Amino acid sequence: MTKSGSDFPVVGVVGGGQLARMMQQPAIALGVQLHVLADSRNDSASQVVHDVSVGDYRDLDTLRRFADNCDVLTFDHEHVPTDHLHALVDAGVTVRPGPDALVFAQDKGLMRDRLAVLGSPVPLWRHVHSADDVASFATDVGGWPVVIKATRGGYDGKGVWVVKDSGGAAEVLSHAQVPGFLVEQLVPFTRELSAMVARSPSGQAVAYPVVETLQVEGICREVYAPAPGISEDHAVEAQQAALRIAGELGVVGMLAVEMFDTPDGVMVNELAMRPHNSGHWGMDGAVTSQFENHLRAVLDLPLGDPTALAPFTVMVNILGGDLPDLYPAYLHCMARDPGLKIHVYGKTVKPGRKVGHVNVVGDDVDSLVERARHAAAYLRGDIDE
Amino acid sequence: MTKSGSDFPVVGVVGGGQLARMMQQPAIALGVQLHVLADSRNDSASQVVHDVSVGDYRDLDTLRRFADNCDVLTFDHEHVPTDHLHALVDAGVTVRPGPDALVFAQDKGLMRDRLAVLGSPVPLWRHVHSADDVASFATDVGGWPVVIKATRGGYDGKGVWVVKDSGGAAEVLSHAQVPGFLVEQLVPFTRELSAMVARSPSGQAVAYPVVETLQVEGICREVYAPAPGISEDHAVEAQQAALRIAGELGVVGMLAVEMFDTPDGVMVNELAMRPHNSGHWGMDGAVTSQFENHLRAVLDLPLGDPTALAPFTVMVNILGGDLPDLYPAYLHCMARDPGLKIHVYGKTVKPGRKVGHVNVVGDDVDSLVERARHAAAYLRGDIDE
Repeated sequence: MTKSGSDFPVVGVVGGGQLARMMQQPAIALGVQLHVLADSRNDSASQVVHDVSVGDYRDLDTLRRFADNCDVLTFDHEHVPTDHLHALVDAGVTVRPGPDALVFAQDKGLMRDRLAVLGSPVPLWRHVHSADDVASFATDVGGWPVVIKATRGGYDGKGVWVVKDSGGAAEVLSHAQVPGFLVEQLVPFTRELSAMVARSPSGQAVAYPVVETLQVEGICREVYAPAPGISEDHAVEAQQAALRIAGELGVVGMLAVEMFDTPDGVMVNELAMRPHNSGHWGMDGAVTSQFENHLRAVLDLPLGDPTALAPFTVMVNILGGDLPDLYPAYLHCMARDPGLKIHVYGKTVKPGRKVGHVNVVGDDVDSLVERARHAAAYLRGDIDE
Repeated sequence: MTKSGSDFPVVGVVGGGQLARMMQQPAIALGVQLHVLADSRNDSASQVVHDVSVGDYRDLDTLRRFADNCDVLTFDHEHVPTDHLHALVDAGVTVRPGPDALVFAQDKGLMRDRLAVLGSPVPLWRHVHSADDVASFATDVGGWPVVIKATRGGYDGKGVWVVKDSGGAAEVLSHAQVPGFLVEQLVPFTRELSAMVARSPSGQAVAYPVVETLQVEGICREVYAPAPGISEDHAVEAQQAALRIAGELGVVGMLAVEMFDTPDGVMVNELAMRPHNSGHWGMDGAVTSQFENHLRAVLDLPLGDPTALAPFTVMVNILGGDLPDLYPAYLHCMARDPGLKIHVYGKTVKPGRKVGHVNVVGDDVDSLVERARHAAAYLRGDIDE
């Protein structure tokens, strides 16, 4: 018997953003009830889930009360304090991914340390405490610019700074709110890749096709699945790196390994332990979406087939622009292209905010890019024809 | 401005069954809020929608209050009294499909009369009021058995009786609750087909691939999409018949035209003006599912592409059997076949009740049938390996 009163379990999702929202679609099919701990009744996921708790995920008692009504706890984001997660586990709550794994997605310093031990390919990097440390690193790697990252709390380009001299480094390190910094070489990559895997507590794991991501100012703008022109060897190398990290870190659920593609092979950039923007293409382009496989993994159900349904799927994010509301643009976009798969998040439009995405599935990647890009631009208000 | 406070409209669905539940998945993607008028908080759709009203759809005041918070009203079933729908329309409520169309799905006598006027191919039939009327019809069409149908209230084989003599006819006609009866020839069909179309208020319409349905005791058990071996001419004949009916009757939303396939061509059997069991395959096998196109149609948005994603999709219904709960069977089914798309409805298992369905998408229809049939049988508890 589960918390739902039947054999169907209740999955508690901490965070009410679009990732929780998009978990609801496969949860409906699976018959699994989703409860969401959201910041407000208007959150993206709050609008589409029957059972919503409003509360602060930074408060342990709130988390405890929420967990009481759930069979397993998982996450829409990685911001829950690690100590709270350990306290929940100690109290018998099933937390997936567990804090011992999740901490490597929460803390980039710990992640880099651990990947170094594993021998995963990573950029040159160093913990830093002062502008002098950064300058010393820059000298060692052949000069400026270098990349400073906050070890915790960053996302969508926040917490990442490219600096070109000691003055710039000093300014970044004056951020009093940031608990720690590291510095990295600016990798001369040819493109960015993402390798996503799902892993269950029993150790079963499946790897999605490796995709190419186009990032602008640290925000994912477009994804091409699979990465056009990627060789079988190269894709397998990236998938194996991701599977190895998932296994070694004990990840449960989805793991996204963002990578730099370089002439010398792939280098691991960032980890996310949840459904990830680079996997949204699979909602329409894969047999089993990342959201379904995340749920299956955290429930310790056998994983679904991550195979692509067509030669290519292209995803383009809809970022907030000049249009205050996306709906009126539907008429034009849908009439122009009946094959579009539009996904909006029910979020208030703010400039640059991710408010939805468009998927297009088919054979010719260039025409898919054109179609998805046009729809996203129209929905954003960048074009009017 | 809509009832949601933004430009995104609120769709009110009368009825909380699995059809309303499955509308929620594309509603999430479209950003459209679904409100459901359900019989209880435990209804299939009540579990997965944020805004649930509990009330009796046979009560006009309940319908009025529900409609007050919605921009458009549509249906999970066809049982709302026609007079109530006219009253709502008179009060300015947008009802789609409207009562003037819906009545032809509610009343089989009116439907047959209208299709006769349109010249649509239908079985020989007659209104009947007595066992003598039935016997007279049987004589005229060459003998027993014949089929008696209640003009209103039937579904899933209920309200349909095959009778083989006057005594049987007399027994059926003694049902005091039934407002009217008609009698039909027992059509010597080779198989049953379903042609589904979506139509918008502006008259745009799209036709889904024509599928074959396997019915057992009046309940849909399996669907093969497209109908294996169907010729282009034959499929177009069926699609054109469905498009013509949708246009002539002024349908808005999904229309399912269930047909008999005979050596002399297709004959129209039943109409449903809502998403229909014979269209569930498209949730995983078509670019745009019937649930998304139903929402688009009732919102007067341009319709999505009904094209199939693969050569075949097979759907097999999960009927209630010996297992009180479906979830424990997931482990075996998902481990055996990672490509299964399982959809359950959150309904209490009762013998013979539709509690879910399984889709499988691929190239070889025979192996798809084997896979989907196995999973449905396992989930039902008919087999244990």
